[in-house]
Amino acid sequence: MSSPAATSPTIGVFDSGFGGLTVLRALIDRMPQARFAFLGDTARLPYGSKSRRTIARYAAESAQFLVREQGAEFLVIACNTASALALDAIQDAVSVPVLGVIDPGASAARAASRTGDVLVIATDATVQSRAYAAACRAQGLRALEKACPLLVPLVEEGWIDSTVPNGKVTADVIRIYLAELTADAAAAGLNPDVLVLGCTHYPLLRPMLEAAVPAGIRVIDSAQAAAEAAAQSINERLCESGERLADVAPSPQLRCFATDSVEKFERLGSRFLGQLVGKVELVDLGG
Amino acid sequence: MSSPAATSPTIGVFDSGFGGLTVLRALIDRMPQARFAFLGDTARLPYGSKSRRTIARYAAESAQFLVREQGAEFLVIACNTASALALDAIQDAVSVPVLGVIDPGASAARAASRTGDVLVIATDATVQSRAYAAACRAQGLRALEKACPLLVPLVEEGWIDSTVPNGKVTADVIRIYLAELTADAAAAGLNPDVLVLGCTHYPLLRPMLEAAVPAGIRVIDSAQAAAEAAAQSINERLCESGERLADVAPSPQLRCFATDSVEKFERLGSRFLGQLVGKVELVDLGG
Repeated sequence: MSSPAATSPTIGVFDSGFGGLTVLRALIDRMPQARFAFLGDTARLPYGSKSRRTIARYAAESAQFLVREQGAEFLVIACNTASALALDAIQDAVSVPVLGVIDPGASAARAASRTGDVLVIATDATVQSRAYAAACRAQGLRALEKACPLLVPLVEEGWIDSTVPNGKVTADVIRIYLAELTADAAAAGLNPDVLVLGCTHYPLLRPMLEAAVPAGIRVIDSAQAAAEAAAQSINERLCESGERLADVAPSPQLRCFATDSVEKFERLGSRFLGQLVGKVELVDLGG
Repeated sequence: MSSPAATSPTIGVFDSGFGGLTVLRALIDRMPQARFAFLGDTARLPYGSKSRRTIARYAAESAQFLVREQGAEFLVIACNTASALALDAIQDAVSVPVLGVIDPGASAARAASRTGDVLVIATDATVQSRAYAAACRAQGLRALEKACPLLVPLVEEGWIDSTVPNGKVTADVIRIYLAELTADAAAAGLNPDVLVLGCTHYPLLRPMLEAAVPAGIRVIDSAQAAAEAAAQSINERLCESGERLADVAPSPQLRCFATDSVEKFERLGSRFLGQLVGKVELVDLGG
């Protein structure tokens, strides 16, 4: 039997903005031997205020760019809104495997919860989509969701260090949101032992969130869960086709694309990626 | 000489979202005998992340809706981004007088300042446009601008009462922003005595802002300044054409339109308008 051929598959990662760089970061940690192409559809964000049909069109166009023009062999939808509203449309638009962030988040919550009751914090748009509630229900979990619209702008301001005054503001905001959420959970007769971070910006607040959750509640990060599920799926597919991940990282390992606001992406992206994003290339996907 | 004929002109008020309802509120206070048609282009917000050309097209389409379909005889652009980037395009697109919020804000700052040095707080997009700095310079003022991106989401969360814990967070955020701004002003050798509120959301924070500014700094609200300028201009035009405002308010006095997110508009709009916005009508201006 011949030994498996070494390969560096290209993984396409898509978000409406650049928050999905936290998912990319978790993917690179797990598969440093893969190539990555990241697209932020920054010209058309926020997806959250748009109709399902419009979001599906934008997401399908973005997915096709990653597959057809960047050669992605696997797609990770690192955007909660697109995962919630457009996963089917993306799967219809391309012929490669597609993974969103919501089902992996719900599966990780299922694995971590003993009571079966979970809390989910996310943006207003994600909560309104009810996608986490549905995914958790499919796992036999009861989920209570809360929109926390201040957390994304606080992360984008960089107020994420609780030892300085502006970070203390963020800690206060987190305390207020979590107090409201746990009070609502108690009123609903739930006994939650898991908090799911249902937004790709929230991993940057993980230390503050872990410090603020009541004892006995574990924090589950959808970005980590999605990266874990993607790595497992990619390794299985390589194994089935008689291949294996190369031993060394390809060069270049990463190309980043955006449809607008390249400057903001370059300025803030490194904080999300945990390394320099480098030059972000502008692409035009049309109106 | 015959006495002037009583009339209730229709004033069109336009914003990318519904923050401009604070301008509408100030207009209704000054001209309760006029009719108003308000359009929030909520489907295509935020304008701030889009190109000047795209913003100009959106704003021109919105202005034409108010003039052609709602019969507006005067337009107030209650949107800082559109005022900064698209006032010329709007004036080219319609044949009625058009007034933005930035020039009235700068004129009011000129009237209020003795030192000639003014501070401006606004959204990231408005600050990046440099429109207030240019308008202030044209008035002989030196202006220092600061983007305060957390204030809009804090207002939209309703965290605007400083006597409760969530409002204390907003007061902390305001203190941090103003401390940074006044330190930057001191470092630049400025001696400011005016703070211009360059965002239509900020009037809801006026009590907190007035409590937080250093002694000797007056707060100037662009929404109030624009309403004042509009009322003066409309009265002059009526006078020239031998008309005067009617003695009683027309019924209905106000129609509100939005291109999307009617629910959020109805839910949050009353807070900005200071009275119920009532039923918001959905309009389609195309992609």
